[in-house]
Amino acid sequence: MEKPILVFQTDFTYKEGAVCAMYGVVKSVDRSLEIFDGTHEIPHFDTWSASYRLYQTMPFWPKGTIFVSVVDPGVGTSRRACVARTSNGYYVVAPDNGTLTHVKAYMGVEEVREIDETRNRLPSTRGTSIFNGRDLFGYCAARLASGIITFEEVGPAYPVDEIIVHKILEPQLSPQRAQGIFEICDPNFGNLWSNIPVEAFLEQGFAYGDRLKVTISHGGEVVYQDMVPFAKSFGAVQKGEAVVYTNELMRLGVAINMGSFRDTYKVDFGYDWIVILEKQQ
Amino acid sequence: MEKPILVFQTDFTYKEGAVCAMYGVVKSVDRSLEIFDGTHEIPHFDTWSASYRLYQTMPFWPKGTIFVSVVDPGVGTSRRACVARTSNGYYVVAPDNGTLTHVKAYMGVEEVREIDETRNRLPSTRGTSIFNGRDLFGYCAARLASGIITFEEVGPAYPVDEIIVHKILEPQLSPQRAQGIFEICDPNFGNLWSNIPVEAFLEQGFAYGDRLKVTISHGGEVVYQDMVPFAKSFGAVQKGEAVVYTNELMRLGVAINMGSFRDTYKVDFGYDWIVILEKQQ
Amino acid sequence: MEKPILVFQTDFTYKEGAVCAMYGVVKSVDRSLEIFDGTHEIPHFDTWSASYRLYQTMPFWPKGTIFVSVVDPGVGTSRRACVARTSNGYYVVAPDNGTLTHVKAYMGVEEVREIDETRNRLPSTRGTSIFNGRDLFGYCAARLASGIITFEEVGPAYPVDEIIVHKILEPQLSPQRAQGIFEICDPNFGNLWSNIPVEAFLEQGFAYGDRLKVTISHGGEVVYQDMVPFAKSFGAVQKGEAVVYTNELMRLGVAINMGSFRDTYKVDFGYDWIVILEKQQ
Repeated sequence: MEKPILVFQTDFTYKEGAVCAMYGVVKSVDRSLEIFDGTHEIPHFDTWSASYRLYQTMPFWPKGTIFVSVVDPGVGTSRRACVARTSNGYYVVAPDNGTLTHVKAYMGVEEVREIDETRNRLPSTRGTSIFNGRDLFGYCAARLASGIITFEEVGPAYPVDEIIVHKILEPQLSPQRAQGIFEICDPNFGNLWSNIPVEAFLEQGFAYGDRLKVTISHGGEVVYQDMVPFAKSFGAVQKGEAVVYTNELMRLGVAINMGSFRDTYKVDFGYDWIVILEKQQ
Repeated sequence: MEKPILVFQTDFTYKEGAVCAMYGVVKSVDRSLEIFDGTHEIPHFDTWSASYRLYQTMPFWPKGTIFVSVVDPGVGTSRRACVARTSNGYYVVAPDNGTLTHVKAYMGVEEVREIDETRNRLPSTRGTSIFNGRDLFGYCAARLASGIITFEEVGPAYPVDEIIVHKILEPQLSPQRAQGIFEICDPNFGNLWSNIPVEAFLEQGFAYGDRLKVTISHGGEVVYQDMVPFAKSFGAVQKGEAVVYTNELMRLGVAINMGSFRDTYKVDFGYDWIVILEKQQ
Repeated sequence: MEKPILVFQTDFTYKEGAVCAMYGVVKSVDRSLEIFDGTHEIPHFDTWSASYRLYQTMPFWPKGTIFVSVVDPGVGTSRRACVARTSNGYYVVAPDNGTLTHVKAYMGVEEVREIDETRNRLPSTRGTSIFNGRDLFGYCAARLASGIITFEEVGPAYPVDEIIVHKILEPQLSPQRAQGIFEICDPNFGNLWSNIPVEAFLEQGFAYGDRLKVTISHGGEVVYQDMVPFAKSFGAVQKGEAVVYTNELMRLGVAINMGSFRDTYKVDFGYDWIVILEKQQ
């Protein structure tokens, strides 16, 4: 049987040698393993974004793929290091610090095990505690992918409901009004992604072509309010104009055609960034 | 026969999960496919740069390699999605929006086909229109590379002269004077690359070691004028000094040794950035 | 026997097509070669950092791995292009310009050979002198990895003691006081890495849990002085507080927990950045 692919995401960037050393460990465990960059540009210490990026990307990979996520502000402290097996057949190797939030909520975690450092840590690195990506997560994931250890040999299982999770807010929808939050952004193009599923939105009677009153508030203060068309893609509006669209995860997003909504209106994501879409009367 | 390599270039960056999801689709189509990053840092929506980077890199790859270029400001609109087969044996999968300019001009396009979305789009993503890199270009390219579809099964052929292209300006050369434009830059080292081929330049009697009067103008206004040596490499001048040199595509470039000409003199590229090189009398 | 992996590090970034063209050359020499990014974000022309990143990453890769390092301010000049075989079984392909400093000092160079351009340069690129990464180092490394040439066929050997090296400063340790320099940083998290080995530090009687008087000076002027705990990891102090810790190379580092020491205190690395750690009386 073919060995699973390893996909890594971290907040390390490629500015120095950390990713390179981590990948070297993997190839030293088993030369035949295949490695992909998920991204190494998760915002520093942002376990919410780490969790979201797993949710955004995992389902597109072959079943059995092992994702290694190292956004780890608590490295060297008592937070658990774990491997989770999801209900839909993937593995995630990560600190148990919120990184599994979306995986647990949307895919389900079938079983989670704490990594046994006595067996699954790179022996030559015992004197340092600050680079678990190289010494623990990468090494353990490589051993699992290679078949050197089974999932059971990762370490002891613990209750799935002990997994640390962030709160996931649900949107409120009615025929004239949808309220949600911006739960993440596309930092490259400057689009904001809400937590409002387009399917539920359409079921309320909203339709492509509608002009919507969009109100964005932050901590109770309105920072944006305008009439914006709801369209399938950016090109439905003129360059520089705003649009409400269906993003790649089938949720509503807000963008500027060939511009950055985020930079233009200084809008960001988080629990306190509320977006309300109302049907024009 | 070995399956072709896939080389991807986009303006997505690695800041979020887009590239990862796109590559996951490829590996889900066929686990054995080999993927390389061309670059994911093409300037946003810049189809000229996308075209130039293909020209700059393609000939160094093995024949048969499939290049996937997704710089796609018109995603979700009526612009064509296509696969071109070049006269020298490569494939390019891209929106037909200017991305094929240099490929068509310098390699030749033997045949171009519009991607049939009914067959070559990832079925699970039909509800969203904004991520063709993942749902259409990546998926179709993977099927082509894998041999699941032939080139003919991409979709219907259309006339090569319908391919959308940008204008390519030609330089004017005489024994005392060469005039061209900066057609691209190296944004990393800050070098400007002209459209003047070094071979034609040397044929006019210019020679390494010449001191040239270099005049750069933008929109008719002179922004730089100085005497600059023409040399084979940067190290022929002192650190911080300007040099005219032969770049990696055998065209003339302008640089500062261990500095950035672009930043120092606020020079950029485009049809209205004219460079004149004159022999010192 | 399996062909060695190629690991590349440069100061090219991924902003344009240079890395892509370089990798295409490798795959054109031998389709079966495996390529990894070390990093392409070495600071421009910084051969010290190039050398340090090799030292930081090489030992984690399988024996036989070929590292290609192209930080090459002297490209096209008379500096040597070389391949070094290390005493512990790796190869480094690089300009001989200081890049081998740490490899030579800490691993040892068994033999070094100057690349013979008449045989090991990509023939089609003879008219340009400024992209040795693509035309010389990448091409030669691919031929070596592929077995097309032996190490002896790289070119003539030259004396190991002719290898160009930077000076490596040694720290001074006593029971109450350790003095060193910051020899590199982690530019991502903003940690500074000293040249003081933790083992020697502990042997002097320093211990985790100590509060240390940390004095940092630059060019003789004190730029930071404070009492800082010595701990195994960042999480031992509150968010925003400074900590002296054992880094991933078993040397002392200075960091701010979930912050950037480098940005906060404008501290950098180099021979003139001195750090003194004193035991609290």
